[in-house]
Amino acid sequence: MHGGRQEGKGVMLNPVTAEFTSQLQRLLPAAAFPELSDKYLTEPRGYYQGSAGLLVAPESTAQVAQVIAAAAAARIGVVPYGGGTGLVGGQILPESKNGAPSPLILSLGRMRRIRARYPEENVLVAEAGAVLAEVQQSAADVDRLFPLSLASEGTAQIGGLLATNAGGVNVLRYGMARDQVLGIEAVMADGRIFNGLQRLRKDNTGYDLRHLLIGSEGTLGIITAASLKLAPRPQSEGTALLTVESPSAALDLLGRARGLLGESISAFELISGQGLRFLAETHPQMRQPWSSPPNWSVLLHLGLSNGTGAEQAIETLFEQASDLIRDGVIAQSAQQAQDLWSLRETIPLANRAIGAICSSDISLPLSEIAGFIAKMPAMLARFGDLRINCFGHLGDGNLHYNLFPAEGVPASNYRDMRADLQAEVHRLTHELGGSVSAEHGVGRLKVADIARFGDPVKLQLMRQIKDTLDPQGILNPGAVLPPRAA
Amino acid sequence: MHGGRQEGKGVMLNPVTAEFTSQLQRLLPAAAFPELSDKYLTEPRGYYQGSAGLLVAPESTAQVAQVIAAAAAARIGVVPYGGGTGLVGGQILPESKNGAPSPLILSLGRMRRIRARYPEENVLVAEAGAVLAEVQQSAADVDRLFPLSLASEGTAQIGGLLATNAGGVNVLRYGMARDQVLGIEAVMADGRIFNGLQRLRKDNTGYDLRHLLIGSEGTLGIITAASLKLAPRPQSEGTALLTVESPSAALDLLGRARGLLGESISAFELISGQGLRFLAETHPQMRQPWSSPPNWSVLLHLGLSNGTGAEQAIETLFEQASDLIRDGVIAQSAQQAQDLWSLRETIPLANRAIGAICSSDISLPLSEIAGFIAKMPAMLARFGDLRINCFGHLGDGNLHYNLFPAEGVPASNYRDMRADLQAEVHRLTHELGGSVSAEHGVGRLKVADIARFGDPVKLQLMRQIKDTLDPQGILNPGAVLPPRAA
Repeated sequence: MHGGRQEGKGVMLNPVTAEFTSQLQRLLPAAAFPELSDKYLTEPRGYYQGSAGLLVAPESTAQVAQVIAAAAAARIGVVPYGGGTGLVGGQILPESKNGAPSPLILSLGRMRRIRARYPEENVLVAEAGAVLAEVQQSAADVDRLFPLSLASEGTAQIGGLLATNAGGVNVLRYGMARDQVLGIEAVMADGRIFNGLQRLRKDNTGYDLRHLLIGSEGTLGIITAASLKLAPRPQSEGTALLTVESPSAALDLLGRARGLLGESISAFELISGQGLRFLAETHPQMRQPWSSPPNWSVLLHLGLSNGTGAEQAIETLFEQASDLIRDGVIAQSAQQAQDLWSLRETIPLANRAIGAICSSDISLPLSEIAGFIAKMPAMLARFGDLRINCFGHLGDGNLHYNLFPAEGVPASNYRDMRADLQAEVHRLTHELGGSVSAEHGVGRLKVADIARFGDPVKLQLMRQIKDTLDPQGILNPGAVLPPRAA
Repeated sequence: MHGGRQEGKGVMLNPVTAEFTSQLQRLLPAAAFPELSDKYLTEPRGYYQGSAGLLVAPESTAQVAQVIAAAAAARIGVVPYGGGTGLVGGQILPESKNGAPSPLILSLGRMRRIRARYPEENVLVAEAGAVLAEVQQSAADVDRLFPLSLASEGTAQIGGLLATNAGGVNVLRYGMARDQVLGIEAVMADGRIFNGLQRLRKDNTGYDLRHLLIGSEGTLGIITAASLKLAPRPQSEGTALLTVESPSAALDLLGRARGLLGESISAFELISGQGLRFLAETHPQMRQPWSSPPNWSVLLHLGLSNGTGAEQAIETLFEQASDLIRDGVIAQSAQQAQDLWSLRETIPLANRAIGAICSSDISLPLSEIAGFIAKMPAMLARFGDLRINCFGHLGDGNLHYNLFPAEGVPASNYRDMRADLQAEVHRLTHELGGSVSAEHGVGRLKVADIARFGDPVKLQLMRQIKDTLDPQGILNPGAVLPPRAA
């Protein structure tokens, strides 16, 4: 467990020692030291194996501050751990080749209180460890909507969702995780507590540290609580699965729908025929609306606050876009809506069951998407037969462009091409003005990508800010930032 | 013009010299050096008189970079100047007691191009000097809405609006200036160009420098262009002026209206009887709907995208909130809507004509507003007779709480109390969890206020970031940041 050292600002980090462990044990009660189970050392897709370290789970912001201050004094790396659902390795510090880094693994899971609710203000204050589904429920209990929603909402925690600026299915209407936040509380790299937990819609008193910390993936500070915006609950909701000729037709439909229905469209998800075929193969019990999967379909969700019924609004869209919509199913009940959503939400599980060669989380300017989807297969042709499952949050310009082996071919046959395939997808994305990480973040998986594709001045500025706010580099070492130039 | 020196990071800034002027004149064409007129040295409320310096107006981002690099090399302070409509002195560097600072005054006014429009993506890319009204018009020309809107929109420029994170009348629905921005381009304190001008809805590739620069009031970098979000244009709009018993009833009405109409309410403005009396006194030609001004009224604006007409929606609200609404006028035409808005928009002019002792731009948690308005007069009683005009963006919790002399008493009688009056308003605001600068920013007027009321860790972090990104302190010296501790 000793001897592992990682790069900080010209200094090396120390591993957790028995002495450091005893020191923390004197500071915090025994409950703050749960057993280090395997879940803290692996991530959903199995890309990383974490270095075992000391797991500590404080129950208050003051305790987090004590822990970080101790880690800073001992120059020990701290890996913040929320729900563990991240897909880019941000929550896992792998063993290094020169020995184990043995970091402090800081779980926020015991800080899961809803500190306060102000329904008349549309505000809820939650601690970092609160699970998203519980926050949604707490808002619903006072007849409000907390709109952040994604497949892992039963596990993902507020702190991690904000640290990674998570996206999900309601971004089109409500924005990213950062857009749901009025204020945050955070512990900085030296143990200072930043109290920015106001619940104001407007506050122009200096630099917006909230947005700097949100999306910094635990490399600048540890978010311990947030005051979150709630929204009125739509009075009428509607869901439809509509088949279209092509991604281009889907985008035309999006424009038509926004013209007709404005911001009331909360989700506009693209589903490919390949995705539905994977679903049929891996989840044969799941009923699909069509006997033969259409090449392209769109899942649309609508929430209206006033008079008009959502079903009726969708029917109007159906009529006014009959040139674009080939076929469609409009949910006639909450159960039917749920079933349609299950199709969409199960696609990632089907993908995992099939076994991807590589996955992408890219975004593109809306007007470049159809071109991207059209061009990409030819650019990948030299790699041989592949199956492509391209799906995602079309309304936000966010595609998950995942590559799979040809039928019957083992994924291991493609092992050597994986990096090149990924690079090809990212290269065209970048050429078209897109981003190689739309909603999952950089973590450890995409550090090289942002070094390659990011604006050089942006990277320099990030490094300057990191070095100022965390001069020893103890916060989530190895995540987000490309290594400093030698 | 010499000898003025200001504080940077332990170093003093230099004044513009004849040598420096010649150097810039060799770098840039003659058109970049307009005459320094008085508008660059005064601000709307006359609080500051600027130190004359060298006015330079580049026409490209590359020229801005050249100018800043030269200023950095010569260690000369740079004051960015947009439309000049700021109300907190952010655009004016006053003469110092130890002599003239003689800064470089950097006008963005010649960089006013709309670089591109992507109506199908709901994106418009504008340069910093583009005037807000022109950007709104450019969006309207492609059937889109750029929702940022405020009284000074005919003069205010995009760069300044973003640098100060301006608010305005549509924040309730569309958010602050920062919420309208997908990407920015900026010149940093050493002349490096940060290219973050993407037009993506989702981009999680590292720290969000966009939000750090927005609202930093030109102290961290000079915003030179932005890609802006457009929204669909509402299909039906409605405006109503409704009288209510009290601020508390107005807030109940807001809750009721949001429950019924959701996010379609774009403005919910509080107007006091005092405001209407000032209007009657200073703008007697303006028709007011009531012979005797009601103590409290609310101007509501609604935009709907689907079937239902906005007028009908307001009538439904009128019926369902008949216990809260005492009387009301629903605009029956665009002209009537315009007339109702004119009442609201002219109140600041009436205030100026009457002559305030002091003005505030505060925000409060919604549930504290009624208490604030109820308590404040008693706390001010010891200062003698005052007239209070409390109005503003109630839906955002943002009040302009302005104090005026008793009728017939000259404002000069109150001169000595001004600071104490202001402090009293800010003290109660702070006690109730509010902000002493909601939408106007800190500028130079409120530096002491954020030093007094701000979170100390936040102030330390701001100083750390400033010192890293602008180590010489050349960018907008004296604005936003409290002076460093001795």
